[in-house]
Parts: sequence; C-alpha cells; structure tokens
Amino acid sequence: MIRATEDQEYYELSSPTALPKASGFLWNEQMMVHMNCRGYAVAQFMQPEPAKYSHAPNLEAKTFMQPEQPYYAHHPGRFLYVKDEESGALFSAPYEPVRVLPDQYTFAIGKHQLVWKLEHNGIGVEMSLSLPRVDAMELWRVRVTNLSGQKRNLSIYPYFTVGYMSWMNQSGEYNEALQAVVCSSITPYQKYQEYDRIKRLKDRTFLLADRQPTAWEVNNEAFEGEGGISAPSAILQERLSKGEARYETPVAVLQYSLSLEPGEEQEYRFLFGPAKDEQEITRVRQSYFLDRNSAGEDGFVQAEREYAEYIREGRGSIAIHTPDPDFDNFVNHWLPRQMYYHGQTNRLTTDPQTRNYLQDQMGMSYIKPKMARAAFLTALSQQIVSGAMPDGIILHEEAELKYINQVPHTDHCVWLPVCLSTYLDETNDYGILEELVVFAESEEVASVHEHINRAMDWLLQARDERGLNYIDQGDWCDPMNMVGYKGKGVSGWLTIASAYAFMIWAEICERSGQLQNSEEYRLAAQETNAVINEYLWDGNWYARGITDDNVVFGISEDQEGRIYLNPQGWSLLSGAADLEKQQKLIRAVEEQLETPYGVEKLAPAYTAMREDVGRVTQKHPGTAENGSVYNHAAAFYIYALYAVGEREDAYRLLRKMLPGPDQEDILRRGQLPVFIPNYYRGAYRQIPHTAGRSSHLFNTGTVPWVYRCLIDGLFGLQGNREGLQVKPQLPADWQEASVTRWFRGVELQIEMKREAGVSATQVYVDGRHLVDGIIRDLNSDAGEVKVMVKLPVAEME
Amino acid sequence: MIRATEDQEYYELSSPTALPKASGFLWNEQMMVHMNCRGYAVAQFMQPEPAKYSHAPNLEAKTFMQPEQPYYAHHPGRFLYVKDEESGALFSAPYEPVRVLPDQYTFAIGKHQLVWKLEHNGIGVEMSLSLPRVDAMELWRVRVTNLSGQKRNLSIYPYFTVGYMSWMNQSGEYNEALQAVVCSSITPYQKYQEYDRIKRLKDRTFLLADRQPTAWEVNNEAFEGEGGISAPSAILQERLSKGEARYETPVAVLQYSLSLEPGEEQEYRFLFGPAKDEQEITRVRQSYFLDRNSAGEDGFVQAEREYAEYIREGRGSIAIHTPDPDFDNFVNHWLPRQMYYHGQTNRLTTDPQTRNYLQDQMGMSYIKPKMARAAFLTALSQQIVSGAMPDGIILHEEAELKYINQVPHTDHCVWLPVCLSTYLDETNDYGILEELVVFAESEEVASVHEHINRAMDWLLQARDERGLNYIDQGDWCDPMNMVGYKGKGVSGWLTIASAYAFMIWAEICERSGQLQNSEEYRLAAQETNAVINEYLWDGNWYARGITDDNVVFGISEDQEGRIYLNPQGWSLLSGAADLEKQQKLIRAVEEQLETPYGVEKLAPAYTAMREDVGRVTQKHPGTAENGSVYNHAAAFYIYALYAVGEREDAYRLLRKMLPGPDQEDILRRGQLPVFIPNYYRGAYRQIPHTAGRSSHLFNTGTVPWVYRCLIDGLFGLQGNREGLQVKPQLPADWQEASVTRWFRGVELQIEMKREAGVSATQVYVDGRHLVDGIIRDLNSDAGEVKVMVKLPVAEME
Repeated sequence: MIRATEDQEYYELSSPTALPKASGFLWNEQMMVHMNCRGYAVAQFMQPEPAKYSHAPNLEAKTFMQPEQPYYAHHPGRFLYVKDEESGALFSAPYEPVRVLPDQYTFAIGKHQLVWKLEHNGIGVEMSLSLPRVDAMELWRVRVTNLSGQKRNLSIYPYFTVGYMSWMNQSGEYNEALQAVVCSSITPYQKYQEYDRIKRLKDRTFLLADRQPTAWEVNNEAFEGEGGISAPSAILQERLSKGEARYETPVAVLQYSLSLEPGEEQEYRFLFGPAKDEQEITRVRQSYFLDRNSAGEDGFVQAEREYAEYIREGRGSIAIHTPDPDFDNFVNHWLPRQMYYHGQTNRLTTDPQTRNYLQDQMGMSYIKPKMARAAFLTALSQQIVSGAMPDGIILHEEAELKYINQVPHTDHCVWLPVCLSTYLDETNDYGILEELVVFAESEEVASVHEHINRAMDWLLQARDERGLNYIDQGDWCDPMNMVGYKGKGVSGWLTIASAYAFMIWAEICERSGQLQNSEEYRLAAQETNAVINEYLWDGNWYARGITDDNVVFGISEDQEGRIYLNPQGWSLLSGAADLEKQQKLIRAVEEQLETPYGVEKLAPAYTAMREDVGRVTQKHPGTAENGSVYNHAAAFYIYALYAVGEREDAYRLLRKMLPGPDQEDILRRGQLPVFIPNYYRGAYRQIPHTAGRSSHLFNTGTVPWVYRCLIDGLFGLQGNREGLQVKPQLPADWQEASVTRWFRGVELQIEMKREAGVSATQVYVDGRHLVDGIIRDLNSDAGEVKVMVKLPVAEME
Repeated sequence: MIRATEDQEYYELSSPTALPKASGFLWNEQMMVHMNCRGYAVAQFMQPEPAKYSHAPNLEAKTFMQPEQPYYAHHPGRFLYVKDEESGALFSAPYEPVRVLPDQYTFAIGKHQLVWKLEHNGIGVEMSLSLPRVDAMELWRVRVTNLSGQKRNLSIYPYFTVGYMSWMNQSGEYNEALQAVVCSSITPYQKYQEYDRIKRLKDRTFLLADRQPTAWEVNNEAFEGEGGISAPSAILQERLSKGEARYETPVAVLQYSLSLEPGEEQEYRFLFGPAKDEQEITRVRQSYFLDRNSAGEDGFVQAEREYAEYIREGRGSIAIHTPDPDFDNFVNHWLPRQMYYHGQTNRLTTDPQTRNYLQDQMGMSYIKPKMARAAFLTALSQQIVSGAMPDGIILHEEAELKYINQVPHTDHCVWLPVCLSTYLDETNDYGILEELVVFAESEEVASVHEHINRAMDWLLQARDERGLNYIDQGDWCDPMNMVGYKGKGVSGWLTIASAYAFMIWAEICERSGQLQNSEEYRLAAQETNAVINEYLWDGNWYARGITDDNVVFGISEDQEGRIYLNPQGWSLLSGAADLEKQQKLIRAVEEQLETPYGVEKLAPAYTAMREDVGRVTQKHPGTAENGSVYNHAAAFYIYALYAVGEREDAYRLLRKMLPGPDQEDILRRGQLPVFIPNYYRGAYRQIPHTAGRSSHLFNTGTVPWVYRCLIDGLFGLQGNREGLQVKPQLPADWQEASVTRWFRGVELQIEMKREAGVSATQVYVDGRHLVDGIIRDLNSDAGEVKVMVKLPVAEME
C-alpha cells in the first residue's frame, strides 16, 4: 500500500482513503503548495506577506499554518472530473470531490513533483504538479488515456478552486484571447493609508490552458447547481454554459470533449497562480506556452527541468547505506529536502522567529553554507547594542513582527553560538568571527566575535539574584507566558541552555585564539551549572522553572506537567548533570516521557489552565507544546544522548521520529515518511487512542537537529579545525554501514564494520591507521577519499 | 409558491430550491440567528464582542456581516437526517445537506419563530426555531409524524454544526448526566494580557436534549466518513458509535430510533447555544427542561411564549389598510419588526457608527421612545467639547472603535437634529433639550440644547474658505476615503446636509423658545444654500464633492460616477434647490439612477479605481455603495420627494424597495419581503443580468426612513407641538386608505377617502372640520379618536 519507488525518487500510496491526509509539498523562491492525496490543496505565495490565490469558500482568517488542519467538501483543491459521454458515469481525480474509488490508484510524492495515476472504467488519468524555480504558479499536466478496447467519448473538466476572494470586489471570466480564466479581486481595505500597499498586490488568479477548451464555467454557483460539488449540475449538461462571476464566488472549470481510440492518449497542461494584471498573464502565456528555447523546449518544459535541478541542489552532506533501508531512504532523500526547504524559504514568513531562523540556517550549513553565513550576519545586524536579540528577524523592509513575535522571549541569544558551531564545524570558516557587523538602531559596528560576547553577557545579566535566567513571557518551545511576566519568574531550561551556550562559545573562542574570553565563559558555564544544581535538581530530574511567586514547577510534586523534556537533555550537554544525575534523568525520561511515537515534551499533559504557568497549559492535551511528541525538543534530546554516549537510547528515539516500516504505524500517524512533522500527538498515557497522530505541519526546527544527530552522533563524522573527526555510535545490532560524506569539497567513502577482536574504534585512510580518528589534510583536488572504520563487536544492551 | 399566511403572521415559501437564499432572522437581547430556507445558519452572540458557537469548518476571519454571503456544503447549519430503517432511504430536513426534494415543503418565516414543514415518503417533519427573550441559545422543536398507512421504523438524527472552534484547544463529548453534547474550546491568544479577557468567554457549545438519545456522534470525521456530509457513513450503520472529539472538529449529532404507528407523532426539543462551563449548562437544563411554573409550563414553553411577547412589544405606531395588500403586510408586520431589531440590538455591535446609532434610535422613537431618549443622551455624552461627534458610540466599557470606525468621517453631527426631530415630533418631549449631559474626556456639563448648538457650530467651522464642508476620509454612505485626506477636499453632500441640519435645528430652537439660536441657524442654512448653488450646481444636478486637488466630481463631465443620489435628495430638503432646480434634478435622477429595483446611489458605477475619490470606486460595480440600489440613500431620497410634494414619484420608488407581488420579481431579488436589505445590486445599465439581487443583509439605516416616509409623507400623520398634523399624500390611484395611528397614548382611527367636489384635503374629527388639519387636545384617557380625511379626486399623472 505504501512504498518507496526503486529509485527512491517517489514515495507511493495506493489508496486515497487509507491515509486521507497523506500529503506532499513543493516550494520555490516565492511560494509553497501542500497537496494531499485526495486533491485538496493549501498554497501560499509571498508579496511580501503570505497570500492566497486559491481561497476557502468563506472569509478565512489570516494566521500562521495550523496543525491537523481539517479538510471539508469545499476546501480548496485541484480536481479533474471525468464524464463518459455515453453512459454519463462520472468520477474525479485524484479522488475528491466525487469520491468514486478508482480501480487503480497511486499517489506518488516526488522530490520535485507530485503525481497521481489512476484508472477507472478503462480510463487512465495521470495528473502531475511541479513548480517553476522562481515564479509563483503551479505547473499542471493532465494525461487521459483510453485503456479500454473500444473508442471512448469523454468530457474532462479540470477544476481549480478560486473561492471567496474578497467582499469588496471579485469577479471572474474566461478570456478567449489569453485562453485563460482570469479572476479579479481587490484586497479589502478601509484606511486610505493601506491603499499604497494593496494596490501593488497580485489580486488576480489565473488558469492558463495550453489549448482552447470546448466550454468553461467561472461561476461556482452555476457550476454546482443543486448537484453540489460532488455531482455538479453543470456537468449533467452537454456543455458548460460559459458563465462568468460578477461578485459571486468564482471557480475555474474548463471542459474538454474528446474522443479516444483504444490506446490513445491526450495531454493537457495548465498554469494556475496569482498575477497583478492581464499584462502579467499575457507575459506568462508567452514565456511558458509560446516561446521556445534552442532545444525546442517551451517555457513549461524548461521550468519543470529547472525546478528539478533546483531541488537537486539541496542535496545533503551524507548519503548512507545501513541495515535499515527505510531509514536510509529518509536520510538520503527526504531529510535534506526538508532542511533545504527551511533554509530556502525561512518558512514563508517575512519575520521568522530568531531561534527558528538561526536553526534553519544551521541546517543550511550542510547544504549551502554561504547562505547560512549570510543569514548569521543578517541576524546579528538586528541585535541591539545591549546584546539582546530581537524576537524575529525582519527579512523584508515592509515586514513587521507578527503573532508570537510580539511576545517577548528571552532565549534567542542562546542559539547564536549553538547554531554557529555547526557552521564552523562544517566549513572551518573561523574568519566569519572577524566580520564587522552593525547593531540595530545604532551606528556601532563590531566583529561577530564581539556581537556574540555581548549576547552571552546579556544572558549573564538577565538573571535574578540566585543566578537563574528570567523567562519574561516565554522561551523556547513552551509558550509559558505567565511564569515570569511580572519580572521575577525564571526559566530552568534557559539557565541550563545558557550554561551550554557559554560552554560552546568558550570552545569556539579557544579555537579562534580568544583565550581570555574562552576562560571567562567556561567559568560562567561552571558557575551556572552549580546554580542549576542548587536550585533546579528535583531528585531525579531538573525542574522547568520557578514562577514570579517562587513556585518551582516541572517537579515530582506536580500532578500535571511533572517532568519537562528540555531541561533534561540540555543538562546532559551543559555539564550540569554528573554521571549519577545523567542516569537518573535518562531513566525518568524513559519512564515518563517515552512513548511508541517518540519522547513527549512534558507529562502528564495539562488538562486545565495553571495560571502561574500560562498558555501551554491551555493547549489541547497532547498537541503542540502540551505533552505532544514535539519533535524539535525530541531531536535535541537525542542529540544530547549521543553527546553522552547513549547510542542505543538515541537510535531508538531517532527511529521513532519516523513512521516505522510497518504500515500500521504509518496509518496510526496518518502520514507518509516524506517529512518530519512538528509533532505527533502525545498524552499517550492519558489519551492513548489519539496518540501518535501527525500534525501534518512540515515547518519545524527538528530537521537540522536530526541531521546533527547523524553527523555528530550516529555516524560520528563531525568537522573540526583540523579536519574530520570520525567517531561513529552505531547501534549495537548494526554490523556495518557505509556513508558517503561530502565535506569541505571532498567526497569521503566511509565503510564501517564491526570486527571481532577490535576493542575500540579504529579509523583507516588508505590503510593508514589514524590514532585520534581525525582525517586531516583534506584536499578537494585529490579525488575521493576511502575510509575504513573498524568497530568492536557490540554487546547488545 | 410564495405567500403570506391569512393571519399574516408568517411569510411562506413552498420550495427549498427556487429561492435558495430565502431567509428569516430572530434576535434577542444577546444574540441573532439568521437562517435560510435550506437549513444553513449564521448566528452570533455578544460577550461583549460578537462571537460564535457554531463555526465554519476552517478558521474564519472575524469581520462585520458580509453581503451576498456564499453558502457551501459545510456552512454551519441545523439539519435533521431521517432514515427509514427498513428501506435505508435517507432524506434531510429542511433540505440540506442530503438535498432530496421533499414531496411537500413549507418554510414559514414568522415574527417570533421560523418553521419548516415537510413531507417525504409518508413521513412528516416539522422543525421550528425560537429564542428566549434574554439568554443566548436556540430553542428547537422537531416533530416527526407517520403520515403513511403502515408502521414505520425510523432513525432521526438532529445535526447541529459545532465546527472548527479553535486551533489551541477543542474537544467534544456527550455528557450522559446532562443529556447533552458539550464541546469545549479555548479562544486562542498569545499575549498574557489577553488572558483576563478570554478566560471569561463562553467557549463551550452545548446541545441539550429533552430526552436521552439512542446514540450520538461528536466527532465530525467519524460521522461523515467517506460518505461526506450529504450521505454520512455513520448513518449507514445501525447505531452511531458514541464517539468524541479530541482536538478534531466536533459536531453534535444525536440518533433517536423510533417506531411510529400510522398517524403517530413524536416531538423532541433541543437547546443549542454557548456556555461558560458545565455549571451553566446544568442550570440551563434545570430551568428549561426540569423546573415548571404554576401553570405547569416548563422553562422552554415559557421562553417561547415570552419571546413572542417580546416581539409583540415591537409594534409600530401605525397599522394600515390600503389598496396594496402586500404593502400593508410589510408595513404592518415586517417593517416595525426590522426597526425594532435595530433599536434593540444596535446591530449586535458594541461600537455602532454614530450615524447608525442615531438613526436606529430615531426609529425607536416610534416604538419605545424612552429607549430612544436614553440613547440620544448616551450619544451626546460621547461628544467632545469642540462639538465634534466620535465615529462610533461605545456601548460597553470594554468596547473600542473597530473597522470603519477607525476612519475619520465628518458627517456625524448632521444626524443629531435630523434624528432628534422625529423623537420630538412623536413625543413632544422638548424637555429633553434641557437635560444636562457631560462631554467626553472633560468635566464640562451642558444642556442637550447647548450640545447640539456646538455640533452645528462644529459643522460651521469645519469648512474651507468657500464655506464648503471638509470631507476628511469620508462621510455618509460613500466610503470616499481619498477625496479629502490631505485636508482640502470637501463634500458637496455634507455641505447640503449641514444646511438641512441647520434648518431643522433652527425649527427646533424656534419651537423651544430659543429664538436667537433659531435665527442664527436659519441664517446659516441660507448662507450655506447660497454657497452650494455657487460651487456645486452642475446645470442639472448637484456635484458630489471637490477633491484635495480641486477637481469637482459627480458631474456631467464624468464618465463614471457622473451623478450621485445623496446631494440631490438633501438639496430638496435643505432649500438649496429652487423649483426649477428641483425639477431638473428629479428628472436627472429618474433618467440616470432609477431602475426597476429602485434608485441607484450613483451612476454609472465605477469599474476602475479613481485615485482622487477612493475606496468606493474599488467596490464591485453594483454592490454596496458603488452604484447599488442602496436603500438607505434611496429611502432618504423618497423622504425628500414627499417633502416637496412629489407623491407619485415617491410612492413608485417606495414600492420598488420591496419585492413586488409578482413572483418573478421576488425570484430576481432572491429574497422574501420580510426585511429590506441594505442594497439590491445596481449598475442596472452596465450589468443588467445581476441587477436587482438582494444583499441579504438586514442591518440598514433604511427602515426608520421608510417609516418616516409613511408617517410624515405618504399618510401625513406627523406630530408637532400642538398635536397631530394630518396631511396625506396618497398616490393618485388610491381611492381610499385607513390607518390606525398610535400617538402619544391615543389610538386614532383614520379613514381617508377621495371624494368628488373636494378641492383640498379636509380633516374631520367626530364630524368637526379642522381647518389646519391639526388634531389638538389628544387625551389618552378619552379612548379611540375617529378621523375622517376627505381628499380631492386626483388626476392621474
């Protein structure tokens, strides 16, 4: 039912009903489209804020992307109705809205295109979606084949939702000269001050066809009639009535009547997207359908090819072959793709949260380090002179801080050294530390080194008399807006994270010759760790924080929110937890937070508001931050397990982040393993029957941390100043694995094998044993490097 | 197909498909519900801002009520699925979502309840909706009758949309103890400052049943399955599976399995609405279903009765009997009801626009003058010391100015004397002028008289050097936000309206003994009229305004927006237009603005943005203010026609405001004549095929002006300081009419008849001829007064 193709270019699903929300997504430099197996779509483009060209049937709220989004009959979609002109039988591809189960069905999620192939009543339909590299529009192919033994007379009706564009002005009509449905609207506004902005918006939606249709309908009400969207009255007629929409809800439906001999096929191509005006649509038609390049390709074909190339540019820095083929497929194909998406689009926002921006670009260090470098400098140029980082990074001159970025969070500085360290490991570009960067709202300019010193100093001063970091209205991944809004509450996690950041920064300082700073921040880390152990250790794990009214929470006495994941993992890294504490807290996490679907962010999930903690306690138990398997936090915890050598626990949890090879697990989660969602439903012990479900949201800081788990942990192929440190932590039951590692311009072929008689990891390059496991003198001109790693035969735990 | 019942308590429609948006509405002190004939619903309640308890399937934008609202498969609704347990046949009442045409169908819009009666396959279904007088909840009765000759085994499934409540937290379950579906959510918020507000909201939706169901389903996805909302998979099963919603979209569906002998019936009652918590639902259950009063009624029955009484309290101040029975029905039953709704609810907003608030309360002068009085004082208490009125009147301490009320408009002062004059005519309560009222943001207190003087003085000074009134970012009923935002543009209409306001105020001053003020404002009116004629007369009509860049618009040179209605009607009243100008402009309106559906607000409708005029020119041609038959403006124009004695034109246009007696006209407009919509689609000469359609919005300042047209114009029964001035202007083809007029506590029975030989109107009370037509010495203890009015036989025009 669910499988990867042999070339692993596609993930395939063979039923539209078994996994009804199964979906794939495509993006380019201006847009994103998320389509599910049944034909429903969520698409947005940037101008500069996210906007839609295919709307809901009502006036939808503008908001951030929602988890577990519900679909409904008139949810925006892309469909093809197919009518047999003789029998009158009707079905639709991919499945919605007629919902006739086809005889054969495949939904294939590719890296650069989505494909549906189906057969019904002797008719084959193939639909595919790709994007151009730059323009905001969808490239659709529809192929109809007569698979039966006799001639068939059909009408096909490509259907593209336009929806409720605007209460102020909307209309739609078919433009014969353009061979296009053109729907127009004006974004509603009331204050004249907004006019300059709205008049520049792409308020038109077009559907351009590569050939003249037999008929069309642009008026949704006229199209549906009493039959409704699942059996439109207009389709019962021989011809659509060429209607237009005048303030009514528009739709773009074309009719092509065709006769197919046995075996004959016809292909149609469409462009669907937003435009400013008819001139723009005319230009699009010219360049995609009329102009041809020297190879005879029109713009459509060229765009598909260029888009495939664009996606290929997003290759990761490892390719693996292990005893776990599903894992290999995900790591080799889908994980870097998701990471690339984050780095390229910054989640289609103009004001990414600072921590998200830094982590997304941390991931980009493995793919396009130059982009990561530029992004780090952009972020630092918005730091204020005190060292504080803003809540979001403004990426467009018209952008402003929105939604959660209007709530002051205190953790952003932590991420600077943490994320930069990956960039440095991967590139060895310590020169970035000498770059001069301005401060926001200031004339002052300082080196990156000085910028990060100030960020660390800011964390050192934003503390109470005990030395614990203030939480203000929130920190990472727990929207705890009421712990510290009165100015006294502190964050356990943030204090621990600060200690880790000081340590990381001390190491970077040491490696870059800033020995005094190094010593200073190492001392700060130690002192912070001491404070942590004095105030936050609860006996078996670390507390999450202390409220304005001095109530410690995330402790054994609490009935709900007794243990939080984040303080535990980070304390493994900061050095706060000694060996005994490490074992205790790892056991506590396993007992209280681990589930078949991963490790939960807190437990037991809150079922009622706790007014001294705040918003997290009002989220639905098991979703988002309230007790879900929040993969971002989980990935960090796994990273920490690798850091302290807990390879078996780490791999077990890592594997749970992806749906398992068994179909039941995939069904449970409701998602194909083509991306890691931001969460799986948690509250496993409280609400077992919903636990494990995917949020279906692919925006998440999880992915670069999974990549770091692989590079720094599982395969142990992390860069340092001298070269590549090889130090794998394969799970005990893997006898071997091979990895191709692209690193600083060199391709390394690394074979890892367990061998009897080997007592510790041994690294060989061209037969030469490297005692410290560091491969030095990498030369990008010298061709492929062959590495052999011998590992002891493991005792199974 | 469409008819009023004989007792005229209901308007009936006998098909769910002919007039698919046909709708009725109910309201009470906390809520409003607008239901269409097919079962779709729009409901909101105040807490204090408008909120929903039955949601769309997606995250809907919070906005003002939208015109021509589209319906779609999953639009919120109230349905009853009926399944024959033997044949499996399924239909739904009223019509959605199964869309099986019943054998018999009636949708009856009553004044205090909405009723659907239908028969299908030998099963009768009656559904009715009423409201309590105060509580925000719906009272539903469902009666199922076996009309066939044999025993029938059925399952019925009352279905109430709950929808997508919140992305933060939502769930639903059936509570056996309460016999209720209880769905819970938390209104999403991100800033802790919002928590104090959201924690008090009624975030639960309940469906309380008067008897235990056989089974239920609260999970929408589980209910629909692959069958979708039109053939839910769960209904194919013998029993609903008693599911719950955990973050999924909730729905409230109950199943009752029943066996009915021939002729047998069963009745079920339900309460559907919002609640704060389970305690509140428990209390509702107790008081509506369990407690009984001394008459043995439970709370449900009592609430229905009280609601009917509440609506009856909204009787108008005339009842008419004319040669036009459709007109009679509308005027006697529906017009005062719509006026009462406005006065009682202020359109379910906490910050009604000042002009709307004053006009809605002007209407209340005819129904509950004490409420109107209090409202005028409330409005004046928000006037600032300069005399300027705010853009909205704040009715709740937590309210703030929203939407269009954030855009500065300059016309609000005009409405004070204009609306107050009706209150004074109706009540003779000139004492209100001596009431002392504070100013906003000030310690200063002044009499109403002084308040209005200052409002007039404000209008006198907010003018340019020519004496024309600045428009700033807009004035009445034309959102012309770019005419004067630079501070120079002026409004032709507002200048004319100011002259009218000065005149009205001068008259009030005179009648209240403020002779010096009277003279002063009469002079101001004259001077203003002179300025108007100097700068705004275009040869055949008055211009609409002059932009910041000194461009006169709304003139014969313009290709679009050549003539605007408002300046014309008001100039008839202000005295600006002499007899010659009156005839010219009336002809211009008739030729350019009159259509079969009424008189348009401007023509030709703008088809493209005109950047020196602004937003109106971006509205869809023919809708809202851009060339629609905007009934508010039209009613005022009709009022002005009566004022200058143009009784035939006036009645013709008045009659066009209501769908005509012929069904075709009703179908064209898409609306039953139970309320006047804010507009009918216009642009009749440009887009004839959509012209005439109703906006389906019943919030409009039209209704009190129509009432004034009747009282002051058509029937000529206007109050003055001495009593009641009788001066009818019946259309020529009416030979007689009778009116009951309730006035200052007296009931007058007035017979109007044309008689040969009568050369001018003659008024008789008890046979006594009143030469000036004024009925004096009205005594509320003296019983009914009989009035005979003799009219000349009219020459037909």
